[in-house]
Amino acid sequence: MDARPPTPPAEEMDSSIGVESVDPKLTVMGGGPKEQASDYANYFCSYASLYHQKQMLTDHRRMQAYYSAITDNAELFAGKRVLDVGTGSGILALWAAKAGASKVYAVEFTDMANHARRLVAKNGMEGVVEVIQCSVEDLKLDAKVDIIISEWMGYFLLRESMLDSLVRARDRWLVPGGLMFPSRCTMMWGLVNDEQDRLSKQQEYIRTMQDWYSFKGETKEFYGVDMTVLEAVYEEEQRGYYILSSFWAELDKGQVLGEPAVVQTFDMHTCTLEDVQGVDETNVSIPLEEDARVSGFAGWFTADFHGTEANPCPCPVTLSTGPENGYTHWGQQVFHLQVPHDVVGGGKVEGTIAVKRQKENVRLYDVHIKHKNVLPTGEDKSPLVSVKYAMP
Amino acid sequence: MDARPPTPPAEEMDSSIGVESVDPKLTVMGGGPKEQASDYANYFCSYASLYHQKQMLTDHRRMQAYYSAITDNAELFAGKRVLDVGTGSGILALWAAKAGASKVYAVEFTDMANHARRLVAKNGMEGVVEVIQCSVEDLKLDAKVDIIISEWMGYFLLRESMLDSLVRARDRWLVPGGLMFPSRCTMMWGLVNDEQDRLSKQQEYIRTMQDWYSFKGETKEFYGVDMTVLEAVYEEEQRGYYILSSFWAELDKGQVLGEPAVVQTFDMHTCTLEDVQGVDETNVSIPLEEDARVSGFAGWFTADFHGTEANPCPCPVTLSTGPENGYTHWGQQVFHLQVPHDVVGGGKVEGTIAVKRQKENVRLYDVHIKHKNVLPTGEDKSPLVSVKYAMP
Repeated sequence: MDARPPTPPAEEMDSSIGVESVDPKLTVMGGGPKEQASDYANYFCSYASLYHQKQMLTDHRRMQAYYSAITDNAELFAGKRVLDVGTGSGILALWAAKAGASKVYAVEFTDMANHARRLVAKNGMEGVVEVIQCSVEDLKLDAKVDIIISEWMGYFLLRESMLDSLVRARDRWLVPGGLMFPSRCTMMWGLVNDEQDRLSKQQEYIRTMQDWYSFKGETKEFYGVDMTVLEAVYEEEQRGYYILSSFWAELDKGQVLGEPAVVQTFDMHTCTLEDVQGVDETNVSIPLEEDARVSGFAGWFTADFHGTEANPCPCPVTLSTGPENGYTHWGQQVFHLQVPHDVVGGGKVEGTIAVKRQKENVRLYDVHIKHKNVLPTGEDKSPLVSVKYAMP
Repeated sequence: MDARPPTPPAEEMDSSIGVESVDPKLTVMGGGPKEQASDYANYFCSYASLYHQKQMLTDHRRMQAYYSAITDNAELFAGKRVLDVGTGSGILALWAAKAGASKVYAVEFTDMANHARRLVAKNGMEGVVEVIQCSVEDLKLDAKVDIIISEWMGYFLLRESMLDSLVRARDRWLVPGGLMFPSRCTMMWGLVNDEQDRLSKQQEYIRTMQDWYSFKGETKEFYGVDMTVLEAVYEEEQRGYYILSSFWAELDKGQVLGEPAVVQTFDMHTCTLEDVQGVDETNVSIPLEEDARVSGFAGWFTADFHGTEANPCPCPVTLSTGPENGYTHWGQQVFHLQVPHDVVGGGKVEGTIAVKRQKENVRLYDVHIKHKNVLPTGEDKSPLVSVKYAMP
């Protein structure tokens, strides 16, 4: 037996994690201390490696967006109290301090907090930035803050469910009228052609089933055990992995067909814990001017640093993780169709999308898509297809 | 931010795991329910996928050894009560039933228990094999058993620390004079030449440090933050990963230099919970007849199905995971030297090895090696080198 469960790749090197205090009412899992301990162990481990921090710190579109959002809007930060939720190596907190914040609380759960502390000292901001090692739910401050900064976004925005912690931090520690950086996040949805990748996943699925048939034959012949009864389960497992899961991709903008659609926008100043649970069934319709072969869908997000209506950013910034400007570490989540759809120019693809937390691991999501092709005449070309994907 | 902590590869697909009852005195971690929940979530998740079970079931050296050990020694099983610890898909339990056991308790913690139950029924052994879903520590039986079978072995034998659970099961449920399958396990140690792999790991280490230097320069230039203070930590992290860790390898028998040495033997009938904690500093000396370049060490294990002195197996079987007979999924754990050693024919490599549980994750181990070259004259050629590796 050897499962290698505790063998993370380089970007997920493990580290010791302590859970000092637990308030069950505040846990992401909604469960008791046991569930939280398990969730924290799984969730925070990779953020404790500098290697992984470096991966995020070398994502230049990410870095540039936050850097501009903070330093180009320095006047908003001048003399203000700032909270950085999940500071990691502390870089956003440092920028906020350089932008003139009077005090920055940099909260970090993992031992990365020690490194952040040293980085802050080395960069001469010890008097302004205070690194606090705890979960943000356990944070105690002597007064509220004027601005909350955070880089909490996961794949297709919601993955990781860190937004819950941010909403709780905001409700507890942001002054009325205070600012969130980013201020607004939007889940985007596009039609794509990545037929090559779709086919390669299907071929991998076929190969793994061929392996199973050989295995079944050998196990019967050599070891006298008939595995037939497990075949359907195995097939379901492999279909789930290769066919009914989304995959990380770095799409080229030429692979996006038509105009991307908005699935949902979250105003960071007003969204509630209920809002951020996921996305209920939402209509999406994407017209196509030219004939096109659609091999699947893709989800990504944009994050705006615009401030509020009462207090707008002088230099608004938008970070998009879509295929239009090149690489970010978020890439896009691609959902392959089982059969590619040929859409006639002037027609459209319409349907619904719902994004729901997985019961077994609420940091992860299922994406339920219903879609059909509509001809330029308005006539339905295809029946409504309903597919439930896991976004792992 | 996106760490992908909960994104297992195909062989580690996740599944829901419940911890129904917890006796803190019995936990592997020695901690409370929280620590156990976290340990169980990490440890058992991959064993819940059929894909991973299939990987173990297509390891023919593993399968053949257990199959022969049970079916060729059927007379030992006839009419006996058997316990299979960690039955997975239930195959060992089925073989024990086919060998004539009167009753087989097949204990499995994960939901794989459901599949085992169906496999048992399909193969007509429902009257004999009873699948019980629980941790073996929580097992309740109405009487003791005559034989315990289990495939509990991890890389270099001890990894995963599942032996603890087996010892507890034995002390609680095996009749005096009962049999353990396997009966004896031995940790083996060899000198190896896999200079190509050693160099490739060193080159990866050098590349990752070159990346760091570019990153540091860019971060200072574009974002005004001096990362120098984290450089030593990053270097330590990368050195730990590429240089001071062991790696899974499938060595060719020609890569083993001299005769492998025994590190430690565990008699499964008598070893105690204290014995299986790890290996204290142990002398190892390997003579070399020919001149050789030693690039590192390798650890693996053998498992014997010999029975006891009072009750020997009529057909004893040995499973070796060494490089001499080809592939097993365990492979060998290779520990690269930082500088290869040229050993003169007639000389030897001698030193000590200790294998200790990691504090942060007791399923994992550190391996502390001290070694030096000794000339044919008996004169020390090199100073004693002391290196501590993580076996991740």
